Amino acid sequence: MSQNDPPVRGLAALPSVQRLIDLALDEDLGRGDVTTASTVGRDAAPATANMVARAPLTVFGLDVAAAVFAKVDARVILERKAHDGDRVQKGALLLVARGPAGSLLEAERTALNFMQRLSGVATIARRFADAVAGTHAKVVDTRKTTPGFRVLEKAAVLAGGCANHRFDLGSGVLIKDNHVVACGGVRPAIERARARAPHTLRIECEVDSIEQLREAIAAKADVVLLDNMTPAQVGECVKLAHAAGVIVEVSGGINLDTVRAYAEAGADLISAGALTHSAPAVDIALDFVGAS
Amino acid sequence: MSQNDPPVRGLAALPSVQRLIDLALDEDLGRGDVTTASTVGRDAAPATANMVARAPLTVFGLDVAAAVFAKVDARVILERKAHDGDRVQKGALLLVARGPAGSLLEAERTALNFMQRLSGVATIARRFADAVAGTHAKVVDTRKTTPGFRVLEKAAVLAGGCANHRFDLGSGVLIKDNHVVACGGVRPAIERARARAPHTLRIECEVDSIEQLREAIAAKADVVLLDNMTPAQVGECVKLAHAAGVIVEVSGGINLDTVRAYAEAGADLISAGALTHSAPAVDIALDFVGAS
Amino acid sequence: MSQNDPPVRGLAALPSVQRLIDLALDEDLGRGDVTTASTVGRDAAPATANMVARAPLTVFGLDVAAAVFAKVDARVILERKAHDGDRVQKGALLLVARGPAGSLLEAERTALNFMQRLSGVATIARRFADAVAGTHAKVVDTRKTTPGFRVLEKAAVLAGGCANHRFDLGSGVLIKDNHVVACGGVRPAIERARARAPHTLRIECEVDSIEQLREAIAAKADVVLLDNMTPAQVGECVKLAHAAGVIVEVSGGINLDTVRAYAEAGADLISAGALTHSAPAVDIALDFVGAS
Amino acid sequence: MSQNDPPVRGLAALPSVQRLIDLALDEDLGRGDVTTASTVGRDAAPATANMVARAPLTVFGLDVAAAVFAKVDARVILERKAHDGDRVQKGALLLVARGPAGSLLEAERTALNFMQRLSGVATIARRFADAVAGTHAKVVDTRKTTPGFRVLEKAAVLAGGCANHRFDLGSGVLIKDNHVVACGGVRPAIERARARAPHTLRIECEVDSIEQLREAIAAKADVVLLDNMTPAQVGECVKLAHAAGVIVEVSGGINLDTVRAYAEAGADLISAGALTHSAPAVDIALDFVGAS
Amino acid sequence: MSQNDPPVRGLAALPSVQRLIDLALDEDLGRGDVTTASTVGRDAAPATANMVARAPLTVFGLDVAAAVFAKVDARVILERKAHDGDRVQKGALLLVARGPAGSLLEAERTALNFMQRLSGVATIARRFADAVAGTHAKVVDTRKTTPGFRVLEKAAVLAGGCANHRFDLGSGVLIKDNHVVACGGVRPAIERARARAPHTLRIECEVDSIEQLREAIAAKADVVLLDNMTPAQVGECVKLAHAAGVIVEVSGGINLDTVRAYAEAGADLISAGALTHSAPAVDIALDFVGAS
Amino acid sequence: MSQNDPPVRGLAALPSVQRLIDLALDEDLGRGDVTTASTVGRDAAPATANMVARAPLTVFGLDVAAAVFAKVDARVILERKAHDGDRVQKGALLLVARGPAGSLLEAERTALNFMQRLSGVATIARRFADAVAGTHAKVVDTRKTTPGFRVLEKAAVLAGGCANHRFDLGSGVLIKDNHVVACGGVRPAIERARARAPHTLRIECEVDSIEQLREAIAAKADVVLLDNMTPAQVGECVKLAHAAGVIVEVSGGINLDTVRAYAEAGADLISAGALTHSAPAVDIALDFVGAS
Repeated sequence: MSQNDPPVRGLAALPSVQRLIDLALDEDLGRGDVTTASTVGRDAAPATANMVARAPLTVFGLDVAAAVFAKVDARVILERKAHDGDRVQKGALLLVARGPAGSLLEAERTALNFMQRLSGVATIARRFADAVAGTHAKVVDTRKTTPGFRVLEKAAVLAGGCANHRFDLGSGVLIKDNHVVACGGVRPAIERARARAPHTLRIECEVDSIEQLREAIAAKADVVLLDNMTPAQVGECVKLAHAAGVIVEVSGGINLDTVRAYAEAGADLISAGALTHSAPAVDIALDFVGAS
Repeated sequence: MSQNDPPVRGLAALPSVQRLIDLALDEDLGRGDVTTASTVGRDAAPATANMVARAPLTVFGLDVAAAVFAKVDARVILERKAHDGDRVQKGALLLVARGPAGSLLEAERTALNFMQRLSGVATIARRFADAVAGTHAKVVDTRKTTPGFRVLEKAAVLAGGCANHRFDLGSGVLIKDNHVVACGGVRPAIERARARAPHTLRIECEVDSIEQLREAIAAKADVVLLDNMTPAQVGECVKLAHAAGVIVEVSGGINLDTVRAYAEAGADLISAGALTHSAPAVDIALDFVGAS
Repeated sequence: MSQNDPPVRGLAALPSVQRLIDLALDEDLGRGDVTTASTVGRDAAPATANMVARAPLTVFGLDVAAAVFAKVDARVILERKAHDGDRVQKGALLLVARGPAGSLLEAERTALNFMQRLSGVATIARRFADAVAGTHAKVVDTRKTTPGFRVLEKAAVLAGGCANHRFDLGSGVLIKDNHVVACGGVRPAIERARARAPHTLRIECEVDSIEQLREAIAAKADVVLLDNMTPAQVGECVKLAHAAGVIVEVSGGINLDTVRAYAEAGADLISAGALTHSAPAVDIALDFVGAS
Repeated sequence: MSQNDPPVRGLAALPSVQRLIDLALDEDLGRGDVTTASTVGRDAAPATANMVARAPLTVFGLDVAAAVFAKVDARVILERKAHDGDRVQKGALLLVARGPAGSLLEAERTALNFMQRLSGVATIARRFADAVAGTHAKVVDTRKTTPGFRVLEKAAVLAGGCANHRFDLGSGVLIKDNHVVACGGVRPAIERARARAPHTLRIECEVDSIEQLREAIAAKADVVLLDNMTPAQVGECVKLAHAAGVIVEVSGGINLDTVRAYAEAGADLISAGALTHSAPAVDIALDFVGAS
Repeated sequence: MSQNDPPVRGLAALPSVQRLIDLALDEDLGRGDVTTASTVGRDAAPATANMVARAPLTVFGLDVAAAVFAKVDARVILERKAHDGDRVQKGALLLVARGPAGSLLEAERTALNFMQRLSGVATIARRFADAVAGTHAKVVDTRKTTPGFRVLEKAAVLAGGCANHRFDLGSGVLIKDNHVVACGGVRPAIERARARAPHTLRIECEVDSIEQLREAIAAKADVVLLDNMTPAQVGECVKLAHAAGVIVEVSGGINLDTVRAYAEAGADLISAGALTHSAPAVDIALDFVGAS
Repeated sequence: MSQNDPPVRGLAALPSVQRLIDLALDEDLGRGDVTTASTVGRDAAPATANMVARAPLTVFGLDVAAAVFAKVDARVILERKAHDGDRVQKGALLLVARGPAGSLLEAERTALNFMQRLSGVATIARRFADAVAGTHAKVVDTRKTTPGFRVLEKAAVLAGGCANHRFDLGSGVLIKDNHVVACGGVRPAIERARARAPHTLRIECEVDSIEQLREAIAAKADVVLLDNMTPAQVGECVKLAHAAGVIVEVSGGINLDTVRAYAEAGADLISAGALTHSAPAVDIALDFVGAS
């Protein structure tokens, strides 16, 4: 590892991500590794471990995994064999870690837990992106992310070929039904947001009906969100909206079976909570290959 | 809310869980809620919001959700309508939150993200527990948990009727293949662990074959872990192990379709990473019902 | 203080603001207050202290000041006598704190340091807002805030009647000269941003000349930033931009003497780092008025 | 960068300063840099950026700025071109940073925000120190510092040629009017402090009148603080105090116009909150000079 | 517990002490209490527990112990039955805690660990204070405290009747042999410190011999530290020092057998690391007395 | 120091230990070192300092001490001259630190405070281990550790030749009298624990009498804890327990005078709180040996 190839980089260097890694190491390793200590010994001979895909998947999380090893033992040398966003086959080598065997064993589970979850998000994002390939639509994520993982899961979504919706409550205006009710209608809600929100943000408003859609267009919304409509209904709304230069997002009940129909209906954006809230972990393992 | 019914209690009061909640609030609300601020206003009139199950599920996470609301605004009054571990039907009311409308809107997504994930774990645990009902076997979790969520997900597993494996690397001796190799065999590995690990811990050893099983029994392992065996193989091993008073855990490829066969094969414990690493989020929503 | 009037609320409840308050208390009070301890005693008789404006000012920071007192001693009772955003005269009463005299003395300086700085920002923002009154322009802040104070200073700017620019690097697209150079021109930079940035964000691009302005308009920038132009140059650019529906922000050398000329030149937004990076503290004091 | 020239050093290595830098990076970069990511790319080609003074100033904060770059990306190589305390002219080169262009862009604002504020303090301190040059007096700071910045701003004051008053409530005894009232007089207050405060601390007492000054001298105060007196009054008090071997500090209404008169009146120490609470930011910029 | 009697108060409210308590709870309770959970249940019936002295001791730490219970479960009601600094007999009741039995069991050990250690410091301080009773000398602590416990152990020393030396490296000037060597002598070291250290601090200098003592007096040290001298040597030095108005501290080999001889030799201050670095824990227990 | 010999390693790399070290540095050095700064200067010439045992002792804590120096100044080069667990004589060299003299002075006390306390634990553990040498018994620690130091003190106990009891409330089942009372007897308590606790944990139960011992054996406890019995009573109980294959731990009043009698009475484990709660600090010093 040369001095210009530091183990901690990218998002893994963010203080908030460092805090998440610390939580993870404290909870798994904070009382030591009693098995390794009592059998192998903490200062065991150097070993080499290969992080390997056990199934086809899209990679994300190498920087975080590397940071986990580096935190457990700064003597561990890491060699990245893949890049975030790579689609790899079963058996692909992702990362090689060389260092004291005890340290590799101690870091193994935490590093893999991050990799399996984040690559799981990238992998399902890849499937969604493929499902709309050739259409105009982008599949975007939501704020339904694992608490504490927002910045990582959003990056995994990008690595998988989908796009990001707003990062958080402060980086996008999305007027929902409760805001509309509290403001007494779509128009006053949009007008208030236009007047008071930072000029760097577009104004997006959820609409439930053609009437609300017309009201949103009249109030000069930049984006409308159509929730729980059929592709046919979406198609109708898209015509109205696009004629007025308004961007259309759809949400509600989006899955791999339905997403293409919405894309073909003309939606610009299709948001799917399933990208992050229910992405199954993908199988990634650490194989020890003996002394380094 | 009486003084003896504080919003922050149970696991949600643990410092490490407080840190996780802080990470989650910082990432979603740390720049404010620009939509609510520009439309409804942060100091909006009081409102009432009902947290409701949108599907049948097993509940877990109410203390964490309550803590999220309480952190956002100490004026929010919470009334728990269900208990962790309850199996509820679609439409069931779980929690009522009353307070400034702006604060409820700001806390909504973070509270729901915790509830959906943790109840997702409890719900799948409930299905696994039901799948082995009537047998002697317990389904147990693994260390394949969401980083930072170990203590919460383990409690969700219990709430769903399954049992816990070791909490972390410090609270259980589990000798795996890499330890066996490093020690030169099953017997020396078990003997070293027996000699050096705290007396409060049983010694569990992974075995790959009948030969290793016999060696583990001879070395007086307390528990053996059979990885990736068929139910028939497990049945054979169970006879040998039980005859020697050794507990049997099986792992590898356990899912809702296969788990009962392993239970009926006589395994004492069946561990399934899927309890935590791939539990899909369950649908829970916050419905605003107007002024409180 | 009723149970529904908790001392910690609003932005002061955010975990990141709590961490800043902790830093401040640790640095001033972390070794105790040797003067108070050796003379008055930590458990001195209750006292009342009035927080008072010593000069005309616009108030901001009461929630933070209240949180400081509450952290030092939960027995301190607080009564807010003003609201964030109030313009008050010299002598105005802002907050009354009642509690152990020792605790009030210990919290005094930290609470005042927050109030003086944040009200200083609100006060200068008020002056900028007044300077452009009657024009179409809004004065907006920048990212030149005190490190750690972003969310507080942005709120103080709002309280003073100005508006917010993007919160951070993640909540707005602002293509600057370095990005333009790296992308090989205004057009490719804008097109890349349009293609890849979240749809919730407008695309703003800095332009140095009429040529770049035309290029930005052609590339369909939502907003252009004119840096270091004269009001006359701005007026010319505004005509071009507005004709194309493009919003115009100006920056560079904005102060209370020059801001109105830019507003009258037709700029939509005028950004001024001075709102936050050089706002002088305003004079606020804590007067002890004897036993409570 | 040789191994003996680490990027993080000096005060920037203190845990509390690391926490402040983390707050600053989280608030600006915690959601990523959407502009850089969507245009230049996070892993852009290496670039070189020069940190340059845009006005005459006294430098402070290089260690903190360097730590910011190092935290964002450990691959950034830093070369210090000036030292804390240097008086530099407009155009002076302060620091050269070489590394991935994206990383330099991401760290830029946070690093500059620290530099501009801290060098602002050093610069105004330099002006105060110059204003009393040739007299016996030292200009000292107060506890009116930016919350969270105490240790940094105190060091900036030193770098500018002024001196430090007590660091915090635990490192100096300063009996103020409220303490005097609570103790029933100057004498009992001083005597209690003498009896109970650590022997490592001098006893300083604020006095409002000649009578209180005489009482403080009689009670063997080590230092007296004269608040809001005219230079003439100070001159009179100094004679009395010095005759008794008592050090004299003055405060209240000290600015660059008045400070010399107090110095010439014989004050030993002149404290000015303006050193820290209202120091305007100085203009420092980061100029990109192309590939490294 | 009335609203004016909050469970968290005093030093226990300091952010740094909160962090220490968090570390302690995380390490003991962070994985839950498997015994209580599996037998009694976390939500067991309310119980009452009495914290009782099992030996004669001087009390310190009640605020910290109370904060531990309050953090584990806000429903626990606390009643203080003693005050910090009280000398109590075996069997004395110190604190009553009422709340869910499970919560009391979970908090018990952490609360007691703080109480036993801190009361241990207060108890040994009480013995040192008694040992010099009637003399002019004060026994003072050192910086040889338990890492993380400085502010608590210093307060325990005061509660036991001894006094505090400087809090930390920033709140006192103590020139030691290494500083003297680096400066080229006692005189230049004292003169530099006098010129540069804050005026709020006295200048103390370690001296090894009569010659160095004379040099320190000539350089106008405020305090001299005599290390490892006999009481007779101290007596001789005291005469010289006191004649010049210089305070005398002695250190080195101070224990309960030798301290009085040094006090009678005329030392003003006698510092003993043993007050904090080797204070044995005192026996304090928590007795459960059944349902509350 | 080669790249494979990093200063931070082992337990010192754990996030929770890093937090403890941060607390310690903040409390001692957080306001700077006013003596060193005003005399030697922070950037003094390089120096070499030897950490030396001033008494015979067993070493523990070198990784923590090294981490302290590395945190204060990354330029300090460390050379370990001893290993944790080494028994060394008075005068033994433990660690050599080379770096800026000011940095060595600043880190000295914090590094020594850790070393003296942790080596104190290892040293007393060594004495206990020696006291039972040749018997079958192991001396084990308890949860009566210094708050925040659990993982370090447990490792020091091992380094001294004793063994560890459960790490925390989550890594061992120890049914105490209060649990027995709440469950209505020894048998139901053991049965509940057996049914619900993780299978990785043995079930240990405290017994007060022969009757309870028989009940515990009948309920198939894995371990019994005999509290406050005489060696003779222990001998009797051991016979009963061992006949049933039950392990015996004794506790209560264990000290260096009594421990061997219990060991010879046949106890398998003897737990002693004194290993950690009252271990006196051992004398370790840092000697400066001039320029490096």
